[in-house]
Amino acid sequence: MQELILAVDLGGTNVRVAAVNLKGGILHKISFPTEASRGREKVVEDTLAKIKGFLGGFPREEFEVMGGGFGIPGAIMLDRGIVSQSPNLPGWEGFEILSRLQEGLRMPIFIENDANAYTLGERWLGSARGVRDFCCLTLGTGVGGGIVLNGDIWHGAEGKAGEIGHMVIDVDGPPCQCGNRGCLEAFASGSAIRRMAIEAIKGNEKTDLVDRCGGETEGITAKTVYESARGGDRLSREIFQRMGMYLGVGLANLANLLNVELMVVGGQVSEAWDLFIDPARRELEKRALGSMGKRVKVEKARCGDDAGILGAAYLVKRKLERRKG
Amino acid sequence: MQELILAVDLGGTNVRVAAVNLKGGILHKISFPTEASRGREKVVEDTLAKIKGFLGGFPREEFEVMGGGFGIPGAIMLDRGIVSQSPNLPGWEGFEILSRLQEGLRMPIFIENDANAYTLGERWLGSARGVRDFCCLTLGTGVGGGIVLNGDIWHGAEGKAGEIGHMVIDVDGPPCQCGNRGCLEAFASGSAIRRMAIEAIKGNEKTDLVDRCGGETEGITAKTVYESARGGDRLSREIFQRMGMYLGVGLANLANLLNVELMVVGGQVSEAWDLFIDPARRELEKRALGSMGKRVKVEKARCGDDAGILGAAYLVKRKLERRKG
Repeated sequence: MQELILAVDLGGTNVRVAAVNLKGGILHKISFPTEASRGREKVVEDTLAKIKGFLGGFPREEFEVMGGGFGIPGAIMLDRGIVSQSPNLPGWEGFEILSRLQEGLRMPIFIENDANAYTLGERWLGSARGVRDFCCLTLGTGVGGGIVLNGDIWHGAEGKAGEIGHMVIDVDGPPCQCGNRGCLEAFASGSAIRRMAIEAIKGNEKTDLVDRCGGETEGITAKTVYESARGGDRLSREIFQRMGMYLGVGLANLANLLNVELMVVGGQVSEAWDLFIDPARRELEKRALGSMGKRVKVEKARCGDDAGILGAAYLVKRKLERRKG
Repeated sequence: MQELILAVDLGGTNVRVAAVNLKGGILHKISFPTEASRGREKVVEDTLAKIKGFLGGFPREEFEVMGGGFGIPGAIMLDRGIVSQSPNLPGWEGFEILSRLQEGLRMPIFIENDANAYTLGERWLGSARGVRDFCCLTLGTGVGGGIVLNGDIWHGAEGKAGEIGHMVIDVDGPPCQCGNRGCLEAFASGSAIRRMAIEAIKGNEKTDLVDRCGGETEGITAKTVYESARGGDRLSREIFQRMGMYLGVGLANLANLLNVELMVVGGQVSEAWDLFIDPARRELEKRALGSMGKRVKVEKARCGDDAGILGAAYLVKRKLERRKG
């Protein structure tokens, strides 16, 4: 009999389902669109049906499913298993998701915010393996975050802690998705890179970005800027350097507040690692007090797209360990 | 026999020594200048001598001194009892202060960073009584801070956590004492109020501050601005409102990162509470995500100048309780 964990990353765009063994090996995974606009009932019904089909591939004679771990985008009241806030899953506020999943799957279920699940994935099998205190940032369209203190996610009073992306670093800075201004997300995300590129082009700075987007400035994405930087375009490279500098300010703030040993940086934008990490480290060292900036390590996330899945699996794995211990 | 705690606030300017009972009542206190420039040996010798004289007033037949708690300005390696960094006590880096005090006083000694001691004072007997998770800010010449998570000070990897005053909220903002720019301290401290006033006068804004300082702009202090604001001066009132707005940005950052239930604001500048708290609360509510800004409470510190002393005493009191428990 092989012991298995069901791991689900229930994102705003895609649902990813995996079978993970106790060592973190992914045996099989599938992905399908969330179609969140259908409303929560449809999404959950459909997801449960697909999960059951998926688990059908692991016959009971050979596999024992120990439990299911779910990463969900939004604030979760862990003690009650309720989604209290979820901008990416409209209508999920107040949803008693935990009991719904338990009834649907008839196994022990554990849920966690998706950025926190990502963070736990990195702690289990990635760059933060065994690290007691660290911060994790995911640079994607936005900036997600998770804070681990004393070896576990810091949730705060309502399970909403770790919103690293909405730490203000420039009080009068550019607008952020959240409705405010100058958040780290407005400087160190894919959207921010896109914005900086479009602003620069409008300011008539010389760049091959214009050709790359066929003159359609609004069609530029962070990926266009990335490819252009890799091609040697000076402006595109400068944009990643500026983004790195701002990221470093955010990291310095985290160091000054929490004096953690390690910052893990992941997400799609982290693919551009060598384009932004030097200015980020410089700014961190400059802005963190005393020895902190030199001591704190900054490392690239290692689990890639699987971090969320692995973190979801870790929710179950950890519980099993605690039972044994 | 009455049980007593020796509590000492060993500041960069003054040393304050108190005898505190187990309920937090201050039986007697004295204060004398630190004269830190004499070097650490002289300071410690002199302090120990004065403490012994002070304790002489509590005869052994009547009083039992249970231990001594010390608040010290700087980063402290708690496990080794060493000062690792102390801008306000020159030459104290590497000083094995704990063993020195234990040898000198022959009683159990507990040490803590002074801002953390202040924070613990507020938790024991002030606005954060019994609160599990909160942040404490002291607005004085600078901005000090302490973070309480799960009922205890969060120290971080090197005991340097809680530097709330050096969280950057404006990446290109005005210079800060620490050598960087745009820290919260550069906006929400006594020094910041003074700077904003001087800048406004130089910009020829209409104010009765000029008369109050007899035309000597550089002679203006935060106190001058405070008195002028109380007298109804429009500019001085605006300065406190701006300071409040910036404070609110800092509080929102703390809320977004840590989702604590309470922010306690103390220090001399907090005397101007009604002049800055409304804009602070407004900005906090606006900038904190979702419900967090509305839920988090902001309260004025209650222990005043005694918070540091009471927190130092609490270090001993807590240990006694744990022994009993």
